[in-house]
Amino acid sequence: VPDEESRPGHLPLGKGVEFDLVRRVLRVLGDDARGVGDDASVLDIVPDEHIVISVDSSVEDVHFREAWLTPEEIAWRATTAAVSDLAAMAARPLGLLLALTLPERWVGRLDALAEGVRDAARAAGAPVLGGDIARGTELTLSVTAIGAATRPVSRRGASDGDRVYVTGVLGGAGSAIRALTAGEEPDAWARARFARPVARVRESRWLAAQGATAMIDISDGLSSELHHLAEASAVELHVNLDRVPVASGVSPLDAVTSGEEYELVVTAATEFDRDEFSRTFGIVLTEIGIVATGHAGVLASNHGERVDLPGGHDHYSS
Amino acid sequence: VPDEESRPGHLPLGKGVEFDLVRRVLRVLGDDARGVGDDASVLDIVPDEHIVISVDSSVEDVHFREAWLTPEEIAWRATTAAVSDLAAMAARPLGLLLALTLPERWVGRLDALAEGVRDAARAAGAPVLGGDIARGTELTLSVTAIGAATRPVSRRGASDGDRVYVTGVLGGAGSAIRALTAGEEPDAWARARFARPVARVRESRWLAAQGATAMIDISDGLSSELHHLAEASAVELHVNLDRVPVASGVSPLDAVTSGEEYELVVTAATEFDRDEFSRTFGIVLTEIGIVATGHAGVLASNHGERVDLPGGHDHYSS
Repeated sequence: VPDEESRPGHLPLGKGVEFDLVRRVLRVLGDDARGVGDDASVLDIVPDEHIVISVDSSVEDVHFREAWLTPEEIAWRATTAAVSDLAAMAARPLGLLLALTLPERWVGRLDALAEGVRDAARAAGAPVLGGDIARGTELTLSVTAIGAATRPVSRRGASDGDRVYVTGVLGGAGSAIRALTAGEEPDAWARARFARPVARVRESRWLAAQGATAMIDISDGLSSELHHLAEASAVELHVNLDRVPVASGVSPLDAVTSGEEYELVVTAATEFDRDEFSRTFGIVLTEIGIVATGHAGVLASNHGERVDLPGGHDHYSS
Repeated sequence: VPDEESRPGHLPLGKGVEFDLVRRVLRVLGDDARGVGDDASVLDIVPDEHIVISVDSSVEDVHFREAWLTPEEIAWRATTAAVSDLAAMAARPLGLLLALTLPERWVGRLDALAEGVRDAARAAGAPVLGGDIARGTELTLSVTAIGAATRPVSRRGASDGDRVYVTGVLGGAGSAIRALTAGEEPDAWARARFARPVARVRESRWLAAQGATAMIDISDGLSSELHHLAEASAVELHVNLDRVPVASGVSPLDAVTSGEEYELVVTAATEFDRDEFSRTFGIVLTEIGIVATGHAGVLASNHGERVDLPGGHDHYSS
């Protein structure tokens, strides 16, 4: 094992308990950490790009329960949630910062947590640029994701006549949480959707290149995200719930309130080549509605019947 | 009071408890928040600049105690600690992200916390670009600071023959902590140094422009930071402790282990105009030693006698 202090791009670190923990993380991260150890990290974009930056925290017993997930999965999910915010803007990930609050009883699982961050960072193509480890009583992973985009896609660009699309198949994460809460073993596919979600980083850039006008990722459930996009763009979204691709065994209502899906809702003035999208990324892209003028909000129907779309997953209620 | 949802540069936010808390923070931040409400924030640098980014967490009962500080001061300190990492690289602040874990018993003090963030952000000239509020049981402020620098100054640039300088007068923060721990009222100057530290943002850019070769901010005590700089630059620092400017009533030993000073240690091949520095910034700049080749470490003397320089402040022991 090479000495991580002599690795190119890292600074030698001083002595102390905190630094010992940082060294353990750096040893696990290996080449997936870059330039760690100075007061701050330095990185670059190309001239026509904008910086895109977001932070997302995962707190024990608020966003996850220890009994439901391995430490690797907890860290994977926390990292992916942050990366997904870059995907929602069609940004290419540049790197991640990890602020970790580590209770004493988690110290023995620090390497496993670092492995989860490393694997998710690698999946996103985003090295870990720096971070901070603090003691505390509550495991918290606060992940800052920084990226770059020539044309960031916000939530506010949807306009009259645009089509509304959603990526992937919804309901898996919510289905897994329901099973786990009931003390049952979730379906394997549903559990994977919950425990190892994937941020749609490449997909979002394809969608942006093909003319996406507005985009948002599904952290709080499709229903909530449609409302957010409608309000940000000041448009009325007409959505056919019966068109939403729903996981087997999950009700459409449960699927549209399933949070932490990390799929994308996207609008576009032109029709996407959905077949090319599926061939390229191995997931479906589905047209679920249309953008209209009117009251900023969502008009949902199910097989022609008007339905009230409920609010989505709220972290506070979990 | 203008509706913060109609403020230019912010997106309208959807419904929900979490959003209500975010709205409260945005109301306090006012014009010191910018472009909040999308999945991520978008910002720009000029072509010859590099991005500089860092994260710093402040955890209740690890980095601060509720009884010692007002909520505004807790938030000011957490924000300033993050900004100080930009100062240590000679970067101009571009903005901040705030990831807040807010226990129920702190909800009533959210506005006061937001005021502390706002005031420190304003002092640094860095708007709040985004953030995240999560419930939890332990108040945690995790602040990401992003900046830009044409020539970031790292810890590793010190070389043989450079002079070693320190800004300001040390020992105040440590003195305040000792008094508070003993149940005594700290001296007003010492308390201000602890409760309302100032990041040396403008000073560091002046020092960089005048030829700083290496720089580090004093978060863990001068003694520790000298070791960090020596190890990162692979040089031997010869430091005269009797030259270190020490607060009245504080012993030199206490001063060099006083953490969270947020002053700067800086090296340079040429001599700084210390009078101009003092006139410009109202604080002293003091030459305290010289850079030599040899074992990577610190050789300290006090009035000609060799002394062992102890390790600095360790957050874990507090």
